[in-house]
Amino acid sequence: MSDTLASLRADYDALVARGLSLDLTRGKPSKDQLDLANPLLGLDLGSDHTDRAGTDLRNYGGTDGVVELREIFSDLLGIPVPQLLAGGNASLTTMHDVVVHALLHGVPGSSGAWVGQDVAFLCPSPGYDRHFAITEALGIRMIPVAPLADGSLDLEAIETHLADPAVRGMWLVPLYANPTGAIVDEQTARALASMTAAAADFRIFWDNAYAVHHLTDEEFEPIDILGLAAEAGHPDRFFVFASTSKMTQAGAGVAFFGSSPANIAWYRTHSAVQTIGPDKLNQWRHARFFGDASGLRAHMRRHRNLLAPKFALVDRMLTDGLSGHATWTTPKGGYFVTLWAPEGTASRAVQLAKEAGVALTPAGAAFPYGTDPQDSVIRIAPSMPSISDLEAALEALVLCVLLAEAEKSA
Amino acid sequence: MSDTLASLRADYDALVARGLSLDLTRGKPSKDQLDLANPLLGLDLGSDHTDRAGTDLRNYGGTDGVVELREIFSDLLGIPVPQLLAGGNASLTTMHDVVVHALLHGVPGSSGAWVGQDVAFLCPSPGYDRHFAITEALGIRMIPVAPLADGSLDLEAIETHLADPAVRGMWLVPLYANPTGAIVDEQTARALASMTAAAADFRIFWDNAYAVHHLTDEEFEPIDILGLAAEAGHPDRFFVFASTSKMTQAGAGVAFFGSSPANIAWYRTHSAVQTIGPDKLNQWRHARFFGDASGLRAHMRRHRNLLAPKFALVDRMLTDGLSGHATWTTPKGGYFVTLWAPEGTASRAVQLAKEAGVALTPAGAAFPYGTDPQDSVIRIAPSMPSISDLEAALEALVLCVLLAEAEKSA
Repeated sequence: MSDTLASLRADYDALVARGLSLDLTRGKPSKDQLDLANPLLGLDLGSDHTDRAGTDLRNYGGTDGVVELREIFSDLLGIPVPQLLAGGNASLTTMHDVVVHALLHGVPGSSGAWVGQDVAFLCPSPGYDRHFAITEALGIRMIPVAPLADGSLDLEAIETHLADPAVRGMWLVPLYANPTGAIVDEQTARALASMTAAAADFRIFWDNAYAVHHLTDEEFEPIDILGLAAEAGHPDRFFVFASTSKMTQAGAGVAFFGSSPANIAWYRTHSAVQTIGPDKLNQWRHARFFGDASGLRAHMRRHRNLLAPKFALVDRMLTDGLSGHATWTTPKGGYFVTLWAPEGTASRAVQLAKEAGVALTPAGAAFPYGTDPQDSVIRIAPSMPSISDLEAALEALVLCVLLAEAEKSA
Repeated sequence: MSDTLASLRADYDALVARGLSLDLTRGKPSKDQLDLANPLLGLDLGSDHTDRAGTDLRNYGGTDGVVELREIFSDLLGIPVPQLLAGGNASLTTMHDVVVHALLHGVPGSSGAWVGQDVAFLCPSPGYDRHFAITEALGIRMIPVAPLADGSLDLEAIETHLADPAVRGMWLVPLYANPTGAIVDEQTARALASMTAAAADFRIFWDNAYAVHHLTDEEFEPIDILGLAAEAGHPDRFFVFASTSKMTQAGAGVAFFGSSPANIAWYRTHSAVQTIGPDKLNQWRHARFFGDASGLRAHMRRHRNLLAPKFALVDRMLTDGLSGHATWTTPKGGYFVTLWAPEGTASRAVQLAKEAGVALTPAGAAFPYGTDPQDSVIRIAPSMPSISDLEAALEALVLCVLLAEAEKSA
């Protein structure tokens, strides 16, 4: 055993002896962040439940969602109100249901239902594990697409895959991607909008989960993706998703679905069978609380004030502990840092961390079928723990990565 | 033209001239009913969002729903808490999603996914149009089952249909059925639980939408249907649905799903892909507002105080206007009165009413594929209008039924 390995083992034994119980698994807002929206929970709707059209928001109906809230998100997302619906408490559910509707009925442009056909989705990876869970559970074949060296989308690879008529969908988080923080720029967006696809009903699931979740002064404006798609002659190519989950209460937010008029009509047809309407009162609470788009942006800056120091701490501790051993992202927004541990060590490092009481997302989780071909990616979610817990967890993580590396080369 | 017809036509012309605009279409609570739950909308959860297990209800997670609310409904529905989940804002969505999961994956006991097979559902009719909309939209063949002369389920017909292995499901509202108000008694429930079905995965969708929605002092206790099913050796036969939609805010309630342990595990597997968890804060509001099962029962009596006079008015006006011409139900709970107009006149009567400004659910809507073989059933939803509007609408309806009858025999 090398001296380094022996010394790291000793450090690790000491770490285990500390009996930590820390969690870096999920991109959950912290208590302090949730507190920012407590005034929303104090709004008394007992005498305030009528929208400006005079609708009693307590009753059934209103499948498109409360227009006052859709207007705010229309501003933020750059999507016309008639093409932007407000729904339930989770955009994940909307994504799932859109895939289900496509399976059972097809989408505009489909020759029929997708179910029973060979249907594949492109999965830029590392990506969001819950996206991949949907496609896997619903029997859709997933094709991983690795990023280019600079972290951007490999458009050439995507174009090649699109020559296959089985490819009917692609998952994409355009801004501050989970977990890499990658940003789709306008040129890339144009390319995606205009690219030729063998399948006439190819759809990009544009999950704009972090549209206004900036961590720096560089507040990227959303790309007018529906406009670009229409311009490029593929008006129905994009399904846009967003939500307030990381703005107000993570579990009690409002999801949004935006798309072309044809796709919106399609979605309405199928959701009309599923629901009499979303929870309009919760939508109303959100409209009241934000007031308007600038109120919402100001609210997101308060989130940034709480989050940015945590991301800075992650970068500092990885720099101090892993420079020369690993690489990682320094995202300008969103909820995650991606750490590339030395090849072949991620799962061992995650296991070591677990045994030392630090929960990390399973290695491989950011890849289709849970398979990281390099066994390198570790997703770090710094939002939830306190600064001191985060520091302790990162210290442990750094040690586990170094030990896994030393073990491997031993 | 007979004198009667001429006189009815004259009355009808006068009715049209009044320019009414009234709506008896949907079982929506009235403003007064919604007001009963306004205190729920005034609860300040800004400093009250932690359940007794210490969970911060604002954050993600908790897919089973808030246990404090599940306990209240466990009491009301007679279903053990571990077998009763609290979900989103509409039990209709849960029903839809359960059918979708069955189509895409099968249910416990299935040989595989239902999709692609000949799948049929028994539809006691007249029944709930939105049930039938789900099965129709999802490509499931619907088999109408007419009630016996006394309004009860035709168990013999059901048993005959169950010999067909294509029959995998049955819609059923066990208490105060929509729209007939029929009540499944314990003996019938036992028969349904023990009946032999050719399909090993036959399911009854037991939509207990009106479990505590009594209109008389005779407050029927829910049948322990899951217990009866287990006893009969068909533990997985029933999917139970319920919701608070007609207790608090119709559009912003909480849905419940109850079933056997195997079915619950099955549901969890599939819903875990669809959602990170329901809106627990809204569930918490409901738990706080009701307090306990007896608080909820007291609240439902306040609904009865508002509803019972409307149902009494319907009965009085139909008695005065249509005795000898039509028959109708006098339900002991729920939201609807079923009127059997003279055979072959319902669609004409509904059309006449519409032209006179009184909206009724389309004739046939209470039947699979919108087809009432007798063209006789008209569903009356008296909850939403004021007493005076209801009176005007019923006066119009009576006239339209009489005119349609006179036209037919002319």
